[in-house]
Amino acid sequence: MAPFVVRTVDKTLVKRVKDYIEQGDSKALIKVIDHIKAADLADLIEYLQPDERLLIFKLLEPEGVGDVFVEIEPPVQERILRDLDNQAISEIVKKLDSDDAADLMGDLPGERAKEIIKTVGDDVSEDLEKLLPYPEDTAGGIMALELVSVNADITLRDAVESIREKREEVENLYHVWAVDDFERLVGVVSLKDFILEPPERKVSDIMNPEIISINAYSDQEEAIQLTRKYDLVNIPVVDEQNRLIGRITHDDIIDT
Amino acid sequence: MAPFVVRTVDKTLVKRVKDYIEQGDSKALIKVIDHIKAADLADLIEYLQPDERLLIFKLLEPEGVGDVFVEIEPPVQERILRDLDNQAISEIVKKLDSDDAADLMGDLPGERAKEIIKTVGDDVSEDLEKLLPYPEDTAGGIMALELVSVNADITLRDAVESIREKREEVENLYHVWAVDDFERLVGVVSLKDFILEPPERKVSDIMNPEIISINAYSDQEEAIQLTRKYDLVNIPVVDEQNRLIGRITHDDIIDT
Repeated sequence: MAPFVVRTVDKTLVKRVKDYIEQGDSKALIKVIDHIKAADLADLIEYLQPDERLLIFKLLEPEGVGDVFVEIEPPVQERILRDLDNQAISEIVKKLDSDDAADLMGDLPGERAKEIIKTVGDDVSEDLEKLLPYPEDTAGGIMALELVSVNADITLRDAVESIREKREEVENLYHVWAVDDFERLVGVVSLKDFILEPPERKVSDIMNPEIISINAYSDQEEAIQLTRKYDLVNIPVVDEQNRLIGRITHDDIIDT
Repeated sequence: MAPFVVRTVDKTLVKRVKDYIEQGDSKALIKVIDHIKAADLADLIEYLQPDERLLIFKLLEPEGVGDVFVEIEPPVQERILRDLDNQAISEIVKKLDSDDAADLMGDLPGERAKEIIKTVGDDVSEDLEKLLPYPEDTAGGIMALELVSVNADITLRDAVESIREKREEVENLYHVWAVDDFERLVGVVSLKDFILEPPERKVSDIMNPEIISINAYSDQEEAIQLTRKYDLVNIPVVDEQNRLIGRITHDDIIDT
């Protein structure tokens, strides 16, 4: 793999955006922003001055602000965090996946992090409390809590409702994990099988019980090796009792 | 990413397998082999002598032989190919995904490849003829032909039948591609949406028309960068007319 990614930011677009900012033309800016993918907007933002970046951030839809933020290079992220007030950071944290939210909090000075945690709401702060204890170089340190797990004894029809409940929360869904009554990981079902098997079948009848998982305290490097070796798109993370507590997705592996 | 993968082959297992081979105990060998994942069996095979490897290869179920072969390190693969007769290689080629089959043929001396192509059957040789023209360092050089594409005008219910037809052929299925009447790529549907949307809806109603694709003659490096930037698990490959001709999967990206 190449040691760096060649960035191909459209220079005329950068110029146009800078012009709109100078002219204070928010309407034109919003129109441009709305048509750019998060990763491209992140690249664009890296080409702007700190005050220009803040202005763009304020114009982003609340739903999209997290997607853009995670795509920005770490040094630029840090500068943006320094310039944003706690309220604005809190809004970003609320929109991030749990693993990205934990990373962001880890980058903040301790005092500031504590203040922000108070403002993000119970759901988010509970997620952060689960994730922050894991050292950065462990599987737990890169796992996300967003996943779909169902009891192995229910039918596919009922399991679909679990997928529906998490529709927005779990963006990249390729597998559903099956657990027993004690939340222990017992199998995995691909979405392909979900589509093709009759809805009245039980999850346990069609799941693959041979699961490759990783302990939350294992080295990150092991997660990378397992992913490469077994061509996984995501790897479930378990605790000492084999209870399913998170998953590491392919993009985190590629980034690591 | 680490420059090498630490292999953790079970030494006692290697010893047991070598003993069974020496004793000519095929029954015991088959029992052991049946319980090992393809990637682990590939690691094990790398620890054996050439003649021992051939013996294991002959004991493998025809269905599994390709899965094991692709996981073996290239130098060992080459040695195995030298030792196998054309008939045995032909059987392996038939079981491989199209991209792996093309790679294998590319590794063989030209004359031998020609002889083997005659024996693999029309389906496989047509696939090979489609793939072999692409230079190794292009997107076409790493793409596979196995994918599910449907006309954007059909319903999800009918599209499920296309998935069913390709159930065995397309192993890692996460997206279904939508094409127009001229086979041009017009959208993508995640399997999650397939499960959650009513079956009477049209593919075009729920597809995402903002597709990131790559031209078959683009540099491989571009495929890697697009995958990283947009967190893709697979990337569709198109020809000059934007017709969908293949896909590159995440494992090929990670391997590259």
